[in-house]
Amino acid sequence: MKPRFQFTIHATEGKARTGVIQMRRGEIRTPAFMPVGTAATVKAMKPQDVRATGADIILGNTYHLMLRPGAERMARLGGLHKFMNWDRPILTDSGGYQVMSLSELRKITEEGVTFASHIDGSRHMLSPERSMEIQRLLGSDIVMCFDECPKIDQPRDVIARSMEMSMRWAKRSREAFDAGGDHAECSALFGIQQGALDESLRKTSADALAEIGFDGYAIGGLAVGEGQEAMFSTLDFAPGQLPADRPRYLMGVGKPDDLVGAVERGVDMFDCVLPTRSGRNGQAFTWSGPLNMRNARHAEDTGPVDPRCSCPTCATYTRAYLHHLIKAGEMLGAMLLTEHNISFYQQLMQGMRDAIAEQRFTAFAADFRRDYFRKE
Amino acid sequence: MKPRFQFTIHATEGKARTGVIQMRRGEIRTPAFMPVGTAATVKAMKPQDVRATGADIILGNTYHLMLRPGAERMARLGGLHKFMNWDRPILTDSGGYQVMSLSELRKITEEGVTFASHIDGSRHMLSPERSMEIQRLLGSDIVMCFDECPKIDQPRDVIARSMEMSMRWAKRSREAFDAGGDHAECSALFGIQQGALDESLRKTSADALAEIGFDGYAIGGLAVGEGQEAMFSTLDFAPGQLPADRPRYLMGVGKPDDLVGAVERGVDMFDCVLPTRSGRNGQAFTWSGPLNMRNARHAEDTGPVDPRCSCPTCATYTRAYLHHLIKAGEMLGAMLLTEHNISFYQQLMQGMRDAIAEQRFTAFAADFRRDYFRKE
Repeated sequence: MKPRFQFTIHATEGKARTGVIQMRRGEIRTPAFMPVGTAATVKAMKPQDVRATGADIILGNTYHLMLRPGAERMARLGGLHKFMNWDRPILTDSGGYQVMSLSELRKITEEGVTFASHIDGSRHMLSPERSMEIQRLLGSDIVMCFDECPKIDQPRDVIARSMEMSMRWAKRSREAFDAGGDHAECSALFGIQQGALDESLRKTSADALAEIGFDGYAIGGLAVGEGQEAMFSTLDFAPGQLPADRPRYLMGVGKPDDLVGAVERGVDMFDCVLPTRSGRNGQAFTWSGPLNMRNARHAEDTGPVDPRCSCPTCATYTRAYLHHLIKAGEMLGAMLLTEHNISFYQQLMQGMRDAIAEQRFTAFAADFRRDYFRKE
Repeated sequence: MKPRFQFTIHATEGKARTGVIQMRRGEIRTPAFMPVGTAATVKAMKPQDVRATGADIILGNTYHLMLRPGAERMARLGGLHKFMNWDRPILTDSGGYQVMSLSELRKITEEGVTFASHIDGSRHMLSPERSMEIQRLLGSDIVMCFDECPKIDQPRDVIARSMEMSMRWAKRSREAFDAGGDHAECSALFGIQQGALDESLRKTSADALAEIGFDGYAIGGLAVGEGQEAMFSTLDFAPGQLPADRPRYLMGVGKPDDLVGAVERGVDMFDCVLPTRSGRNGQAFTWSGPLNMRNARHAEDTGPVDPRCSCPTCATYTRAYLHHLIKAGEMLGAMLLTEHNISFYQQLMQGMRDAIAEQRFTAFAADFRRDYFRKE
């Protein structure tokens, strides 16, 4: 039988690692990028096309799914995998981040958060226990602890108190997850480190999580406006505070250069809306940097979006056509650019995995940055 | 070498006909439904998926394409087929209808129409000669004469004068098309019958077109608000006024029951935005009638949109999932329902072609109407 959750590191170079997570629904090659499927769809893509880009796992958002279609309804319909026709692993977040950024009339107590839906104003509650229940009802493969993600620019004592509550919530999440019967026996639970940019708070958080014990450890509370330099400074110490034999997941990151810099610092997993959202907005990521497809210089350019890219969009369509579609507001423009961007991200991850395996990741990262930041 | 344009009728039943049009870029099985690809894309579908539904030919809109990306630009980019990755036949309309319905500051003279773009207000001109030139620059396979499509509820003398001008424009279109060199030798030109609901005006128009001589003949000026009963009354005589050995194309039609009724009356070709537009709006066509996927009764329905449909959407997804996607405003909902609707239309056409070939079209049409109008 396939293991519930087994992480094997195949090679390292400096702090960078490559390996594989084995789970019941399939393998996740690391470093891994998880496309975001917020509302039971990776926006503007069919699931078979998401898989064809090389994605081993996608992310679903607990906050959105609990509001629509609803967790109990999803369970009656057979769970998220069947609902959206994705049979490989799905990681669900806890709802903690979105409830802070999207909902209204929030009230946070030690028990949890009550809030009003941004869709219809209806009242809801999230707590460690309810978040575990919802993620179980969805059928999540990798469940995230319920935590609070505080604004990054607050005083240290505010960040500390928030982190400490998140650690108490992590323990309650662990206990509620473990009580989950069959689901707990075939899925995994990740803890989330908090502490903003503060090394000692991050250390306290990491130790508290390790004491509880999780299948993997996320670095939370970053990519919230602190900038790449501050994020990298934090990543210079945060991953190393977490257990070395477990996957480390940097939540909500990021730009292609963020991913390379974070892998260099020991991160194994990522998720971000950037490739999908940018695709809908006419931005294409390439090995030569991002391109704004609305730019008039593409109007008669018969070359592909990225000559080094192997995706169906680049094999088939010209920059001129994509420029036209985006300018005309055509859905196909969003579809083709999303597919390109997700594929580009997967090619970047594959490039990093191969480079680490072959002990040439330092050169890979240098080449990447040289090409990505060179002006065309 | 493949013929430039050859129409072969394989079987008839009553006035209904089935056959094939052979052209350089491929065969068009008739009765044929042409998905509308207004701005060089069948909205929300990849071209290979359009083809997989069974579509032999698509339609492009001259008005939209002349404004964006522009006819001369399209020619520099290698033509519409290459631009949008569709290598089978494309029919382009003349721009005459859209310039009346979409543009601003129109001025119509015997020479043609001057107007302002609905996109940016820029000034443009369309005439029989310019329309032929644009359709040649696009690389159209079936070119439509430039005509005026008058409002249907005007006095007979207004309709008559408009029709007479359209017939003079048809002659100018023929002459301009024939002067088109290589393009004229590998593409076809269709005339457009006008005359609104009036049998004698329709006859005058049909005779004028036959005198000029075209590869096929369209019935124009219908599906503009007159209602199905008036449309069918007109189709009781209009197709029979046109040359029997040429394809008859009913422009801008229609609902599934419109198509069946028009095929019964001798029509061979159709185009309509309904399946694509409805798909984006959450409406699904089925053998049991149209469904509004927003309706709450679908929220936990694990059946397919249409159990008789063979499309990928019906093979893969539940009504519950499509309901969720449409309610959430997800692009994938529009993508999957558009694919279903175009596929349903193609299955309906295939059903009619098979039934006529097997001399059971009367029963097919009766069965269709019984199921389509029966309340679920």
